[in-house]
Amino acid sequence: MARIVMKFGGTSMAGIERIRNVAARVKREVEAGHQVAVVVSAMAGETDRLVGFCREASSLYDPQEYDVVVSAGEQITSGLLAITLQAMGVPARSWLGWQLPIHTDTAFAKARIGEIDTSALDESLAAGVVAVIPGFQGVAEGNRVTTLGRGGSDTSAVAVAAAMKAERCDIYTDVDGVYTTDPRIVPRARKLSKVTYEEMLELASVGAKVLQTRSVGLAMKEQVRVRVLSSFDDARDEDGHRGTLIVGEEEIDDMERQLITGIAHDKNEAKITLTAVPDRPGAVGSIFAPLADAGINVDMIVQNIAHSTGSTDVTFTVPSADLARSLDVLEKASGEIGYGNLVHDTRVAKISVVGVGMRSHAGVASTMFQTLGARGINILAITTSEIKVSVLIEEDYTELAVRVLHTAYGLDAEAA
Amino acid sequence: MARIVMKFGGTSMAGIERIRNVAARVKREVEAGHQVAVVVSAMAGETDRLVGFCREASSLYDPQEYDVVVSAGEQITSGLLAITLQAMGVPARSWLGWQLPIHTDTAFAKARIGEIDTSALDESLAAGVVAVIPGFQGVAEGNRVTTLGRGGSDTSAVAVAAAMKAERCDIYTDVDGVYTTDPRIVPRARKLSKVTYEEMLELASVGAKVLQTRSVGLAMKEQVRVRVLSSFDDARDEDGHRGTLIVGEEEIDDMERQLITGIAHDKNEAKITLTAVPDRPGAVGSIFAPLADAGINVDMIVQNIAHSTGSTDVTFTVPSADLARSLDVLEKASGEIGYGNLVHDTRVAKISVVGVGMRSHAGVASTMFQTLGARGINILAITTSEIKVSVLIEEDYTELAVRVLHTAYGLDAEAA
Repeated sequence: MARIVMKFGGTSMAGIERIRNVAARVKREVEAGHQVAVVVSAMAGETDRLVGFCREASSLYDPQEYDVVVSAGEQITSGLLAITLQAMGVPARSWLGWQLPIHTDTAFAKARIGEIDTSALDESLAAGVVAVIPGFQGVAEGNRVTTLGRGGSDTSAVAVAAAMKAERCDIYTDVDGVYTTDPRIVPRARKLSKVTYEEMLELASVGAKVLQTRSVGLAMKEQVRVRVLSSFDDARDEDGHRGTLIVGEEEIDDMERQLITGIAHDKNEAKITLTAVPDRPGAVGSIFAPLADAGINVDMIVQNIAHSTGSTDVTFTVPSADLARSLDVLEKASGEIGYGNLVHDTRVAKISVVGVGMRSHAGVASTMFQTLGARGINILAITTSEIKVSVLIEEDYTELAVRVLHTAYGLDAEAA
Repeated sequence: MARIVMKFGGTSMAGIERIRNVAARVKREVEAGHQVAVVVSAMAGETDRLVGFCREASSLYDPQEYDVVVSAGEQITSGLLAITLQAMGVPARSWLGWQLPIHTDTAFAKARIGEIDTSALDESLAAGVVAVIPGFQGVAEGNRVTTLGRGGSDTSAVAVAAAMKAERCDIYTDVDGVYTTDPRIVPRARKLSKVTYEEMLELASVGAKVLQTRSVGLAMKEQVRVRVLSSFDDARDEDGHRGTLIVGEEEIDDMERQLITGIAHDKNEAKITLTAVPDRPGAVGSIFAPLADAGINVDMIVQNIAHSTGSTDVTFTVPSADLARSLDVLEKASGEIGYGNLVHDTRVAKISVVGVGMRSHAGVASTMFQTLGARGINILAITTSEIKVSVLIEEDYTELAVRVLHTAYGLDAEAA
């Protein structure tokens, strides 16, 4: 007997027919002898509907009341799943955020989970009752309803799994796992049977949108074993596993370990170049200080070799959504920085090669540069971390770059 | 400065545009210096949608989980009204059933309100913050969500008004008050400016569907002054009042008092006749005992004069919805009762004349019988109470009967 958490997203909860499918999956785990807590999202489209009402009521809505409104979506699906489970002969009850309770801070509309009281839950699980818990919601000091921000149900599931010391947190979604890269770009991308928290964080933050980044960070911190799998498809790997398991590095043995785990791409960055910045101490600081003050995340930074004129070009990237604001900030600071021209380009993409194996292998970056160079793909900027190498390239080359790198690192699946 | 409760139904809350209209009404009361609590229904259609989900999930749904699902509708509108009020510069916050809390018993899906804790509410109202309270919901022992049954928001409003010792409970609806009779039948029906609790109970229970019956009973018990008025129309009476005030008899002075307050009709009864019932002690009891055991409410009863054969015909009415069940019960008991035939008729209507004034006036009933007789309308059964005389007639004569009685008791408005 094990304790497990199962989490189902909005697509899986969209209508009673699909909720029956969810209940059948839950029933199977109960019949296998497990104690099960289920975390559910609102029906697909419902949260958008409720957010739309709030925005229509006031563009400057009070986040405390917004949370009262939007948390209703998950309240509805948790009651409905409990009813459906009971109808299948599985004892079940819903536990709303304030009932458990799931304590959060008071950052309404983007709250963070603190302590989860599991005393009542433990008792109920021990009595063989499935706990149905609405994702995305909690309760803050003063007994006010809170929500965790969009995609927060993944985080709820991981937090509940940590609190109840679950053996596993299964995240059911509309894809069947985490792939070496986007299968729409590389049809021979392979599903990974295991991936480390660190790799998943890097893959998620650069565009592989399977799990909410925050939930992966929490799983890493709390050492929760997370599995991503499809709620619509029961296909298994050759080795009999379903989905992708996200675990600590120590759980992946050497045989399984790949040099490179995956290739990610991200088209949501914009490149900014300041030309003829004076080549003197403090000049670069005067560029990034006002951007930081404005809360803009600068990602890749390249400072070109000084011109003979005693000035440099500085290039960096910001999220595309922050481009207009960034340009505004830099124009206002032009006197202080003293640059020549302000140039920007949104037609760029970031390509990242991710893998914990690269820690012990030199040559990963150089393979990347050579592979791209051989195809005539120009590298505009580079950043590296312990388990990731990212390059900025022209957007038009995105798919080509992902494909050739996927092959170069030996990630292509055998042809079927 | 007074404390008032304002209650808005589903039609008034259907969409943000209408919620703005509601907020504008609330704002006016706040600007008049009042402390205001607002009780809201779910958006029109929303409760039906949620109930539909529960029924689709299971015809034998758990009422505890049903309450979790259906209470979400009012939760949504209370958050939205709070946001809308704030956007108009009116401080406001929502108080969910479990937050106040509104204690109820554990009769899930049809709970009854017990104590309402107003300490937090009092403090908030005193600070000038409008309290927005979802109707229809409460919290029971064990911290479970409850609902009060359909139409329960009227009851919530009256209960909140009683608990906070409000000067008045204004029920905003889609009609502008209580009329002497159905204006669709009698265009010259008059709006009543005042009516007593007792009269309202009789009018409501016989088909004038303005207020939920239970809420009127509670208002009478708690001596809450209730006003029914339109949320769409600001028309005032000649004397400057809006809507209809429902109050204790002592608040209606002699000048205002009418002999008859209104004429109600109800087509939802069915007539059952047992012929040739033995005229011996206990025979009638053997008819009604099994019906009572089956939870069927028998209304009007007529026992005809004994035939020379030593047997009688017994006629009575039951709610149409219970007819099939009633016939079944009586057929099973036929041996014991020993009747001749079992005859039923659903094409009947109950017409009632209501008024506290009739206590001190003889002749109300005889005016009724003469008026109907003069039009050739046959009376099938009669019941009377202190403030009501009801007759059963053939359904085809319903409108004619209401019109001639309305005129006979002097209720017609002056022609415009």
